[in-house]
Amino acid sequence: MSEIIVGFAKMGNIGSAPLIEFILDERAEREDIDVVVVGSGSKILSKQTKKVAQKVIDLKPNFIIMTTPNASLKSPIEAMEIFKESRIPAVVISDSPAKKAKDKIEEMGLGYMIVEADAMIGARKEFLDPVEMGLFNADIIKVLAITGVFNVLSKEIDGIIESIKSNKQLNLPRLIIDRELSVSAANFQNPYAKAKALAAFELAKQVGKLNVEGCFMQKDWKQYTNTVASAHEIMRTAANLADEAREIEKSNDSILRTPHSSQGISLQKRKLIEKPR
Amino acid sequence: MSEIIVGFAKMGNIGSAPLIEFILDERAEREDIDVVVVGSGSKILSKQTKKVAQKVIDLKPNFIIMTTPNASLKSPIEAMEIFKESRIPAVVISDSPAKKAKDKIEEMGLGYMIVEADAMIGARKEFLDPVEMGLFNADIIKVLAITGVFNVLSKEIDGIIESIKSNKQLNLPRLIIDRELSVSAANFQNPYAKAKALAAFELAKQVGKLNVEGCFMQKDWKQYTNTVASAHEIMRTAANLADEAREIEKSNDSILRTPHSSQGISLQKRKLIEKPR
Amino acid sequence: MSEIIVGFAKMGNIGSAPLIEFILDERAEREDIDVVVVGSGSKILSKQTKKVAQKVIDLKPNFIIMTTPNASLKSPIEAMEIFKESRIPAVVISDSPAKKAKDKIEEMGLGYMIVEADAMIGARKEFLDPVEMGLFNADIIKVLAITGVFNVLSKEIDGIIESIKSNKQLNLPRLIIDRELSVSAANFQNPYAKAKALAAFELAKQVGKLNVEGCFMQKDWKQYTNTVASAHEIMRTAANLADEAREIEKSNDSILRTPHSSQGISLQKRKLIEKPR
Amino acid sequence: MSEIIVGFAKMGNIGSAPLIEFILDERAEREDIDVVVVGSGSKILSKQTKKVAQKVIDLKPNFIIMTTPNASLKSPIEAMEIFKESRIPAVVISDSPAKKAKDKIEEMGLGYMIVEADAMIGARKEFLDPVEMGLFNADIIKVLAITGVFNVLSKEIDGIIESIKSNKQLNLPRLIIDRELSVSAANFQNPYAKAKALAAFELAKQVGKLNVEGCFMQKDWKQYTNTVASAHEIMRTAANLADEAREIEKSNDSILRTPHSSQGISLQKRKLIEKPR
Amino acid sequence: MSEIIVGFAKMGNIGSAPLIEFILDERAEREDIDVVVVGSGSKILSKQTKKVAQKVIDLKPNFIIMTTPNASLKSPIEAMEIFKESRIPAVVISDSPAKKAKDKIEEMGLGYMIVEADAMIGARKEFLDPVEMGLFNADIIKVLAITGVFNVLSKEIDGIIESIKSNKQLNLPRLIIDRELSVSAANFQNPYAKAKALAAFELAKQVGKLNVEGCFMQKDWKQYTNTVASAHEIMRTAANLADEAREIEKSNDSILRTPHSSQGISLQKRKLIEKPR
Amino acid sequence: MSEIIVGFAKMGNIGSAPLIEFILDERAEREDIDVVVVGSGSKILSKQTKKVAQKVIDLKPNFIIMTTPNASLKSPIEAMEIFKESRIPAVVISDSPAKKAKDKIEEMGLGYMIVEADAMIGARKEFLDPVEMGLFNADIIKVLAITGVFNVLSKEIDGIIESIKSNKQLNLPRLIIDRELSVSAANFQNPYAKAKALAAFELAKQVGKLNVEGCFMQKDWKQYTNTVASAHEIMRTAANLADEAREIEKSNDSILRTPHSSQGISLQKRKLIEKPR
Repeated sequence: MSEIIVGFAKMGNIGSAPLIEFILDERAEREDIDVVVVGSGSKILSKQTKKVAQKVIDLKPNFIIMTTPNASLKSPIEAMEIFKESRIPAVVISDSPAKKAKDKIEEMGLGYMIVEADAMIGARKEFLDPVEMGLFNADIIKVLAITGVFNVLSKEIDGIIESIKSNKQLNLPRLIIDRELSVSAANFQNPYAKAKALAAFELAKQVGKLNVEGCFMQKDWKQYTNTVASAHEIMRTAANLADEAREIEKSNDSILRTPHSSQGISLQKRKLIEKPR
Repeated sequence: MSEIIVGFAKMGNIGSAPLIEFILDERAEREDIDVVVVGSGSKILSKQTKKVAQKVIDLKPNFIIMTTPNASLKSPIEAMEIFKESRIPAVVISDSPAKKAKDKIEEMGLGYMIVEADAMIGARKEFLDPVEMGLFNADIIKVLAITGVFNVLSKEIDGIIESIKSNKQLNLPRLIIDRELSVSAANFQNPYAKAKALAAFELAKQVGKLNVEGCFMQKDWKQYTNTVASAHEIMRTAANLADEAREIEKSNDSILRTPHSSQGISLQKRKLIEKPR
Repeated sequence: MSEIIVGFAKMGNIGSAPLIEFILDERAEREDIDVVVVGSGSKILSKQTKKVAQKVIDLKPNFIIMTTPNASLKSPIEAMEIFKESRIPAVVISDSPAKKAKDKIEEMGLGYMIVEADAMIGARKEFLDPVEMGLFNADIIKVLAITGVFNVLSKEIDGIIESIKSNKQLNLPRLIIDRELSVSAANFQNPYAKAKALAAFELAKQVGKLNVEGCFMQKDWKQYTNTVASAHEIMRTAANLADEAREIEKSNDSILRTPHSSQGISLQKRKLIEKPR
Repeated sequence: MSEIIVGFAKMGNIGSAPLIEFILDERAEREDIDVVVVGSGSKILSKQTKKVAQKVIDLKPNFIIMTTPNASLKSPIEAMEIFKESRIPAVVISDSPAKKAKDKIEEMGLGYMIVEADAMIGARKEFLDPVEMGLFNADIIKVLAITGVFNVLSKEIDGIIESIKSNKQLNLPRLIIDRELSVSAANFQNPYAKAKALAAFELAKQVGKLNVEGCFMQKDWKQYTNTVASAHEIMRTAANLADEAREIEKSNDSILRTPHSSQGISLQKRKLIEKPR
Repeated sequence: MSEIIVGFAKMGNIGSAPLIEFILDERAEREDIDVVVVGSGSKILSKQTKKVAQKVIDLKPNFIIMTTPNASLKSPIEAMEIFKESRIPAVVISDSPAKKAKDKIEEMGLGYMIVEADAMIGARKEFLDPVEMGLFNADIIKVLAITGVFNVLSKEIDGIIESIKSNKQLNLPRLIIDRELSVSAANFQNPYAKAKALAAFELAKQVGKLNVEGCFMQKDWKQYTNTVASAHEIMRTAANLADEAREIEKSNDSILRTPHSSQGISLQKRKLIEKPR
Repeated sequence: MSEIIVGFAKMGNIGSAPLIEFILDERAEREDIDVVVVGSGSKILSKQTKKVAQKVIDLKPNFIIMTTPNASLKSPIEAMEIFKESRIPAVVISDSPAKKAKDKIEEMGLGYMIVEADAMIGARKEFLDPVEMGLFNADIIKVLAITGVFNVLSKEIDGIIESIKSNKQLNLPRLIIDRELSVSAANFQNPYAKAKALAAFELAKQVGKLNVEGCFMQKDWKQYTNTVASAHEIMRTAANLADEAREIEKSNDSILRTPHSSQGISLQKRKLIEKPR
């Protein structure tokens, strides 16, 4: 069978988005898939979301992964409607506010993965510049990778690819990725590493609440600057806590690694010096 | 004047790439630009690079930023040739091995920014899985953001936009971003923060050398697994060292922030509780 | 005037309780007050709360500070009713669940200070032993002390003493001590120290939510053990973050110190080597 | 048999005191005991110690635990004499200077536990305010809990309860809790965790010596401020070192936990996810 | 005037010894002095100490610095007697047990500098191997350098050189280098850096006591192994605490630097980017 | 057989030098060897190197270990020629620039061990004073000890001693000690500890390159001050990374210890509480 084309439609940014296409093929060795990405940068007005949706369809993917903050907003919904009409299977990855739209997404026939730890950034002009944006993303990526979100995303998208490759019926994932689902996928061997990962996930979730407060509810500029600054401190702390979890696994030589083979199979290993299977 | 369309053509991955479109418009508030992104995922064969190049041109950007590992390879060069023929101005962002191609790129009329700290990842199946890929990127993003690479990229791309907006002649950047250029752009106030940033940049550079050794020169799987594992340890250390630099600036309330205004102007501030200007 | 007797009625334990009498007279030098404490240990059934209430009244304090987890439960309310009948002014210090009782407390004529960061402990037999209990309290004390809760408690109780000493009308405090009230009382000089303190306070608050979940809502013992273990990891992290805040103030020689004089006046100083005034 | 009443008479403060009643019944689940606490706040003049002694006797405990700094001073001795006359068994917990009184205490028929690591606080007005008092206690509690002091206290007091419950003859403990006795009770599995705990205990001991020097022997205010500040730095360091010890045990999933059952039995477990026995 | 020859006679090892000759001429640029070193390795029997003493005299130094553990032992005293007879001025640098010999050293006309923080190593076969020996020395060197011992040594030896150069009468130093003398010489600008340095010095002192206990007083091999292991943990902690002190000074750009000029003058500077004077 | 005399000729300083004689006999218990050391302090002009060489020969060692920075310079070569003529076997220990002289050294019949991690210090007057010199050496000693350099040196020198003792033919070592040779000798049990050690070794190597740049190639004083300051930051980071490696081994109770017996045999042990064999 020829290779599967996975289309990514990136609208605005969430923590799960910047590296998502590389989660599928982390070493550029997979022979069973190819990837196309279209993105709109940070904006998610209708103008951008519709253009991205249309362009990714033009690239004829077998299925589409769409990433967007708050999938319950009007403009991401418009993109989903374009996907619905295209009859190309599509899955939306979004953050906690997207929960409001989950029934609607399901009605449209799309899948979804809502990542509770995928917190909004502290988007206030007094605080957020390109460097601070980079640091927040670095920290959230560390949290998502270690606490199991990357494992869930990898497994679910691989499942879609596998269904298409084997002509099975597609069961698009419809998941709220909460701390237990996520950390369970990370499959820690040491229970304190697991506890730290659960904690890191929760911290990231709380960042989202604080940043919503600081970005949308507080009007006094000194107040909201303090709020978003404290939220980013929490994300930095969460990244460090996740790192502690991973260091514990290193100290036991029990890091779970699940590299993709060139055939697209998710292999497994625990010891650093052993071959994945 | 109508908004400038900035096109991003992402081929494979380097540390500077995943967030580059957000460096321009970190809070989705700029009214002077719009952004389109096309990417190929992790692969950079001709098939991918040419498709990405063509598709981004189809989106009619005013200018193009291309990101690729090792811009001296045949397939990224093919993409550049497509840009050359399109007569759309284009700048290539790449990593140290791209230095070999800098004359060629200049001859084609393109600009370049070669980031010495933008190290190759440890792409060995025994080591690199989706989670490890995420962690490496998180660490390198932290290093690039804090040590000034994001400041250089932001300033140079803003310069192109400004030239187009004001109908000035375009001088595409042709820069090797080494530790002094980069850290100077970060503009630390405390000299030990600066020394730590210089050090972090150097560590990241060294990671590239080790990973090239581990990925291309060592054949024994145990040996190369050790090598790439040690390279990732260095990147983690570099991220921590960069973080130390930033914490020093925090302790002096002297973090430089350069948020974009809605008109696309790069504002400045140092104290957390003050307005950017 | 003769010295004021401050009575403490401690029922069960909350983070604010173990050291509260020492907050008033940290070096045993105050000549204007004396302190009596009666406590029930960890239990808060009616039997204990009523006995503690009665016994502290027997010691004839000028006013009473009562500490209890969840002041909205029946048994602490019974103690408050005893205080009400005694006509000795009383203030209840409690944690977030006490918010449900704040109107009732006010109706009884008592004051209250509800400390949002004063999280419930992870009281599950599979997890909590004497050592873990000690560590949780050590961590929460660190958080409460640094983030300003001790400053609020000190100031409010001193205010009551002062009113009694000067025969002014008593205005018993009725406060929800949230992150902004608390951190504002801590009066950090460096804004990043403040941001870290705000963050630490929020983390502590979240611990309370997780522990309520783990102690009262989850039934599976493996699940709740993971939950309360992760909650304690967060409190440890919060203590470290608070410590970071204080270290920043140390690095600027700007730690606010407010020792009591022997006359009970709250003095102030910032530099380590200067006299308080 | 009816429940045993344990009376706590707290005079002034030492590190072992603030949480001692909770060490017995850390989750408020024991059905075999009840607890009454009477305390004097920070002062230990005769006036306070005698009142506390008398009041705790009034509450008719089966036995009494008295906590006091420097049990060799006249006023704590007065309290012990009251206990002696009451014929209620009593055990004094105190710090290193109490060693001078150990024969006297034994002659009075009381037990004692002298905790060498239970260091005096840096009680100088230029340094010690409510917040610093809280931090010192948080740090010393962490040291005492991890290095085994809590284990010794728990075991010895449980032994008294058990003797009373079973009508056995009472052998009141007469112990100097030094680093070897203490750390042996903590029962570390990893020998480096044990070495770190031994070290932390020694550091805490040294803090006591420095604070005695700073509080009683040095007269120049700048000199003693430096001395007590350095002593608190050591206690902070000791807490961190103890924490390192515990983190090592976490990394091996070998934390010893000894929760009390509802019948008052001290259960044991090592793995986080196992039931205590 | 011709250059001064400084002779170093190193017997056995103490923390102050391995780098002492480089303290005088840290960049090999001094034109006013030359240095000769003779050493015995780790042994300090008469055979070694007398040979070292004789050989260093043969090299015709203007004055001699002798380093030895416990200068009160018979064999180091024998070396001092050789120096006395040679009439070459000599100063002994040693550790705390040397205090017993200070009158004797003075009677012989020699100077001394006894460094209280210069702790004995944990010299037990079950523990101390070449690597552990290296780590202990690395840690103690860090403590001695940061807490001011190196400053005192440098100043005092420079004073001798200066006296000889200017034909002034020699006043050989006779100093007990305790924490206050030492830290005062380090001249910290931030008082918390100073407090941490005082603390680090005290910790190092305590290591000496523990290692004497572990090496000479405890006979059970398991017991003394635990003791010396805990002593080395304290030294590691002391080094980290000293490092914290220096990082605070870095964060304020106030590190005191006192490089020697080529003329042997001790210059001074505080800011990193300024010229020493 | 009588004891072997090992002569050390120390010229200038490198990281391997200050403790090298103690690596052989870390507890002063070996009965099979004695040690003599002659050194020149920091200078390595012909005047010093020739004097040191001559004096060490006068002490009649069975073989000589010479330490020097850059053994390819004229003046160290002169010392080697003196050793060659003396017919006393000699081995030169030096740093990376010495590689240029390795053929020459071999031709002279001497052995060599060139330690790639043994980086040059940042010898600029604006930066390097006695304290900074001490800190750099402390950090590099930590790196060399943990990453295996001390193990290699110990084993090779013991090999020479053994050959002489048993009248076997001498095979003087001729080794470039690179990261793999070194870390392999350290023989870590945990592979992540090994990866961290490999990384630390590489960092130290890079410090040498930066300091050569800062000391010999950069002329602008602000530029070179920044460069050498960043190099020392890297060495501090490398020491911390090496320390992380050792802490992992501690957490697994698998620290390799190789103490010398009194007969000079290198014993081995892994668990802290076991006897070496």
